[in-house]
Amino acid sequence: MIDKDVHKQHISKKFNAEMDELKSHVLEMGGLVEQQVQKAITSLIDADTQLAESVRSSDKDINNMEISIDEECARILALRQPAASDLRLVIAVSKATTDLERIGDEAAKVALQAIELTEQGESPKGYIEIRHIGESVRKMVGDALDAFARFDGDAALQVVKSDKNVDREYGTAMRELVTFMMEDPRSISRVLNIMWALRSLERIGDHARNIAEYVIYLTHGKDIRHRSVKKIAEHLSPENKA
Amino acid sequence: MIDKDVHKQHISKKFNAEMDELKSHVLEMGGLVEQQVQKAITSLIDADTQLAESVRSSDKDINNMEISIDEECARILALRQPAASDLRLVIAVSKATTDLERIGDEAAKVALQAIELTEQGESPKGYIEIRHIGESVRKMVGDALDAFARFDGDAALQVVKSDKNVDREYGTAMRELVTFMMEDPRSISRVLNIMWALRSLERIGDHARNIAEYVIYLTHGKDIRHRSVKKIAEHLSPENKA
Repeated sequence: MIDKDVHKQHISKKFNAEMDELKSHVLEMGGLVEQQVQKAITSLIDADTQLAESVRSSDKDINNMEISIDEECARILALRQPAASDLRLVIAVSKATTDLERIGDEAAKVALQAIELTEQGESPKGYIEIRHIGESVRKMVGDALDAFARFDGDAALQVVKSDKNVDREYGTAMRELVTFMMEDPRSISRVLNIMWALRSLERIGDHARNIAEYVIYLTHGKDIRHRSVKKIAEHLSPENKA
Repeated sequence: MIDKDVHKQHISKKFNAEMDELKSHVLEMGGLVEQQVQKAITSLIDADTQLAESVRSSDKDINNMEISIDEECARILALRQPAASDLRLVIAVSKATTDLERIGDEAAKVALQAIELTEQGESPKGYIEIRHIGESVRKMVGDALDAFARFDGDAALQVVKSDKNVDREYGTAMRELVTFMMEDPRSISRVLNIMWALRSLERIGDHARNIAEYVIYLTHGKDIRHRSVKKIAEHLSPENKA
């Protein structure tokens, strides 16, 4: 009997170590992705093509991390057959890595706009918006990862809320840029680069929101995707805690 | 012994039925998504705001399907602990539904552009490109789903290849539209609507490619995401069959 218990404890220790490792791999990937976002924004604002190129070349590291974490998830599902909250964690990780990889893609797109802009000379408009919305979504990515690291549903809800602000600011910025293009048609091409970059930043915000929603799924066991912030907040009230 | 075997057979029959059901739910969701893409394109070309509104309101059905299929996946993982190819199917389904949902989102965005265009009068440019690229990506979605239904890795590879053509056509169309805007600045706002719609169509192509890549993962047990078409084709050669 004692031998069996020891064996069981051993398995369970190993399983916990694997789950911790999985979690730390996601956070590592997240850290790299957040850096990519930061660098992409800086490369655009500072017209730093070298930095932009480095963002584009690091994108394959992120792609490789996605594949390796997905393999890890499949291995744990196959060999450990996790249940309840462990299973939810594996599912959430598998979903979150997809969003992290897409954030990486969008950062690479921002870097591409930085390169194109540097080639054709600065845009006369839009840098303030890039800086402002860029900082908001970079923070959203960081906050979503922190919420994930600490299994903090309330912090995740804040990220979901921020996304609404970003969407609103994005809409205002785009309308202003259209007006500006009409007034100064020579700027069209360069302002379009800014618009594409803003579009990518807005998408990064969406992906950060998705990650925050998986955290809420983890902490509350409820899938709250596609719901309004108000509905989500209701689900996060103490009596609904998983 | 016989009783045990009967019991085992019973479980296995039930499990197989569940897997078939899961697969058919994904294909059902895929069918609806493909319709949404078709309708969104038609609404734009025909300036049919009613059709565009119906695309936007059906989007929530797709969102609900995603959540329900994800729940199904989690239930199967928890209760049946599938292994090998069954596990791969569940993982692929869970990934594919995310892409299907995003395709639905992009279709809704195309429909929004249709509504905005109808409000401000037709765009002087871009309908041919919308029709052409739209038809290509709609076909990609359908072909990816067919490949999924038949576990056909070779058909999936064709979808991956088509995506390269779409990306090229998209690039050409966008450059032409920029030139056109510069020549006729009064058209800026309307041509931007066309550009956003094209961007969404191009994204739909990317998601169809993702689904095709999951099919290759299913049929060959290899994760070929982020690889070149040539590399993928090598993996699909007969000696690499899973």
